[in-house]
Amino acid sequence: MTRWKLILEWDGTPFMGWQRQDHGPSVQAALERAAKEMTGEAVTANAAGRTDAGVHALGMAAHFDIAKEVTPHRLREGLNALLRPDPVAVLRVEQVADDWHARFSCIGRRYLYRIANRRAPLALDAKRAWRIGPPLDLAAMREGASYLVGRHDFTTFRSVHCQSDSPIKTLDALTVEREEDEIHIRAEARSFLHHQVRSMVGCLALVGLGRWQPEDVREALEARDRAALGLNAPPEGLYFIEALYN
Amino acid sequence: MTRWKLILEWDGTPFMGWQRQDHGPSVQAALERAAKEMTGEAVTANAAGRTDAGVHALGMAAHFDIAKEVTPHRLREGLNALLRPDPVAVLRVEQVADDWHARFSCIGRRYLYRIANRRAPLALDAKRAWRIGPPLDLAAMREGASYLVGRHDFTTFRSVHCQSDSPIKTLDALTVEREEDEIHIRAEARSFLHHQVRSMVGCLALVGLGRWQPEDVREALEARDRAALGLNAPPEGLYFIEALYN
Repeated sequence: MTRWKLILEWDGTPFMGWQRQDHGPSVQAALERAAKEMTGEAVTANAAGRTDAGVHALGMAAHFDIAKEVTPHRLREGLNALLRPDPVAVLRVEQVADDWHARFSCIGRRYLYRIANRRAPLALDAKRAWRIGPPLDLAAMREGASYLVGRHDFTTFRSVHCQSDSPIKTLDALTVEREEDEIHIRAEARSFLHHQVRSMVGCLALVGLGRWQPEDVREALEARDRAALGLNAPPEGLYFIEALYN
Repeated sequence: MTRWKLILEWDGTPFMGWQRQDHGPSVQAALERAAKEMTGEAVTANAAGRTDAGVHALGMAAHFDIAKEVTPHRLREGLNALLRPDPVAVLRVEQVADDWHARFSCIGRRYLYRIANRRAPLALDAKRAWRIGPPLDLAAMREGASYLVGRHDFTTFRSVHCQSDSPIKTLDALTVEREEDEIHIRAEARSFLHHQVRSMVGCLALVGLGRWQPEDVREALEARDRAALGLNAPPEGLYFIEALYN
């Protein structure tokens, strides 16, 4: 058996998320089906993170084991041909050690959240960003974000469906930048709770709109109570960017 | 009657292009229908340029006349609501003089062409860029582009359906830049022939691939013969960016 690491890009719009589901299409099922068609083997794929329905990936890491001998070039091209018309692309493949694991070996995860800060609907970026009409106050959002960086109990920012053992996580970075009429929020941590990035972005949006003061983010964090959450941002603005390994 | 200037964004994928057609949807028809629903008036819209099927716009200028009294805010919001679900957005509206004309007053047009220079299919940018697998030689493309800038007879780069009186145009700029795994070609001129940008991009792609030498672009230009064209680039990578006015 050879273990292969894959770097994946996908449009989350038609999927229930990464994880295989009984009730709808998933990226995992699409990838496993393509791998089975190519090799004849029953393949199980693992990813660095399980994304929600509608969330996109620009560089998700995953792995699977196959017995069939194949070159990296053939594997990537074959999978990409068999994945069509699903909007999933294999950007790179690489042979890795048998004990390498996309999820358990991962030491860092990076997300990008795109807010389109404009009045007009999104003709070209529909389902690619969260549109917010009123102008957002960037300085206030940055101040709000500063309270979240570091090691905290993120219970407020955690979905009730979260399966993590502990609500305590270390957020390494949370930056807020303007790029033309978009606001880009980037988050980096070893790992995140379920819905954590979307929940943090939702509260920062309230700060940007002036409905919350920056300090309200600190209060929400300190409440350690899901009921203190202001807003969960919609999935379509969220992109899994990169998984980091040693 | 009040003349309104509009700045439009659209996803060209589902449209036959800007111009009203009997055989399929057009941006013009969508806009005129929305304006009629809003005002009850039969409205005719004019745009700075007529784009092909599949070509996108990030900032097309257009105008129409309506008798109904309306504020700029109401007009933009009303049109955007009525345009749904067509992927057309009114970014800005502005009252202009009765003799202002989106097409005839226009003194410059800017286009962007996006090439995704990568092997993997485009999961997120399908129908948003032209994917070319082999790495393109940027320096060679720039040299090829340099032969096209200036006042020339562009017959080689002109569609047989072009309605322009003369094939002589002045190309003010044609730049080639790399941005991560994309190549962006930007073209600016007072006006363009039908298919001119796509035809120039097609030939520059051949140069980038090494199938043409940069000097072959000059030879194609000097041939003044459509048969000397190497390749017409597909519409999905082309964006109308901006129309310039005094």
